[in-house]
Amino acid sequence: MTRRDLPATVDIREVGPRDGLQLEAPLPLQDRLAILKALAKTGLRRIEATAFVSPKAVPAHSDAELLADELERWPHVEFSALVASVGGARRAVGCGVANLEYVISVSEGHSQANVRRRTADATADIAEIAQLVHQAGGQLEAILATSWDCPFDGRTPIERTVEVAQRAVALGADRICLADTIGTATPLRVTSLIHAVREAIPDTEIAVHFHNTRGSGLACSLAAVQAGVTQLDASVGGLGGCPFAPGASGNIATEELIYMLEESGVHTGVDLDTVLTAAALVERAVGHQLQSNLFRATVQT
Amino acid sequence: MTRRDLPATVDIREVGPRDGLQLEAPLPLQDRLAILKALAKTGLRRIEATAFVSPKAVPAHSDAELLADELERWPHVEFSALVASVGGARRAVGCGVANLEYVISVSEGHSQANVRRRTADATADIAEIAQLVHQAGGQLEAILATSWDCPFDGRTPIERTVEVAQRAVALGADRICLADTIGTATPLRVTSLIHAVREAIPDTEIAVHFHNTRGSGLACSLAAVQAGVTQLDASVGGLGGCPFAPGASGNIATEELIYMLEESGVHTGVDLDTVLTAAALVERAVGHQLQSNLFRATVQT
Repeated sequence: MTRRDLPATVDIREVGPRDGLQLEAPLPLQDRLAILKALAKTGLRRIEATAFVSPKAVPAHSDAELLADELERWPHVEFSALVASVGGARRAVGCGVANLEYVISVSEGHSQANVRRRTADATADIAEIAQLVHQAGGQLEAILATSWDCPFDGRTPIERTVEVAQRAVALGADRICLADTIGTATPLRVTSLIHAVREAIPDTEIAVHFHNTRGSGLACSLAAVQAGVTQLDASVGGLGGCPFAPGASGNIATEELIYMLEESGVHTGVDLDTVLTAAALVERAVGHQLQSNLFRATVQT
Repeated sequence: MTRRDLPATVDIREVGPRDGLQLEAPLPLQDRLAILKALAKTGLRRIEATAFVSPKAVPAHSDAELLADELERWPHVEFSALVASVGGARRAVGCGVANLEYVISVSEGHSQANVRRRTADATADIAEIAQLVHQAGGQLEAILATSWDCPFDGRTPIERTVEVAQRAVALGADRICLADTIGTATPLRVTSLIHAVREAIPDTEIAVHFHNTRGSGLACSLAAVQAGVTQLDASVGGLGGCPFAPGASGNIATEELIYMLEESGVHTGVDLDTVLTAAALVERAVGHQLQSNLFRATVQT
């Protein structure tokens, strides 16, 4: 690997406020706004702010509408929200959030567990959601959960992920995000899948979303960047999972990703120290230690 | 990166019993022997068992002689010990430990802090230590601490690390280990240094030793393996550092390294589940949580 194998810049999407908080005990709206305020100062250009999903399944985001109302405070940031249904997309667009991530599970087992639908049926809804999003002037990303592995079905065949990606794009998705939902991906498999998906949808941007459950998250991110991916999800402080949930583990930590990439000459546009300040705020808000090694090393010194 | 960029096999040296335990409160000899016993079952072929250093500076290893006496129990494992002086090497060889790691600091600041000597003077002792080791039928590895960065002097110039490596080999070291003492290395810098060192000492084996202080340890390990390195240090459970020491952080976790490499088709010869069993034993012995994400995910399920 040399400097020439890496892009000059990448774009990090902060997903802590959505993915990071979704398994935490619900935080008051004011706390979440304070976190967004801190993150908006870091140089991050894109933040996944909330999710318009079942309040019963995800109480942490039950007041997504109230949060959405406040996002105009930070016009320099592109906010987005996650949805898991046409109804969720309507709610989001209805309160002015036009950039959406629609999550579908590549594996049937996870699709049933997550939305009680077949993958094909969930995928079909992209047509309607894309229309809603595009009419509102937004962009639609299809997040492909269990792109590498499924907690129920085991290894996801590459062809299956490729097929779902192709169908999602054909139905109107503007971008595909390959998500390592359970944090089992490893660098070589990342490279293989990205190459296969890119061959199938050469004109569509590919993003990646890694969890650090087995410690390989940054190595997978670097493999993705080496394979030409410039859109990466990360979570401040490695927020995510839940201290009380079995085996749950957070997304890769935003500050660790920034550190590794900037030190490799890849520009992120995000200020490391300001992210660490935001992480400290997040840690106080959630009331337990964040997992990021870089953050831990900082707060201990 | 493709499968062809990676070697077929690598050799992991377990350093938990030495580096991992050195900042912990001293464990009883029986506990350390139980840990060695558990590690000897994993398929690990090399284990750094202890250190012959100042008992005052490192009380955790003050009874290195007693531990050394027991190592013949596991004849299938190649045990080694760390030393920081000619006197330490004499102690080690005197009780039958012939494979030694002699640690020298590339940066003057760290050399002063660690052994109160100039780098050149500490390096010069390799001649005498190599003679002791070779007469005893062992191999001498020179560990180059602060190969990338120094906590006192900042960035270590590549030329300086290369120069110390060259001199160490000229004086009789059989292998060079590039150590990221404070866990600041990043993948591209790893590649650059390995290439530079290899060019200077093309016939000498190069090993690497990473800490995970900023989360990049596995990504650095993969970069090293991509650059042709097949000797890597790791620590069971990510043991190392100390919960009470500012900013301290452990080595990369043996089980996380095995997982990433085996999933990439690189054979380690080590059984992941047996390492996790050993990690559980280590966690009980040290009495606090180990940092390895993979281990944590396992014990929580």
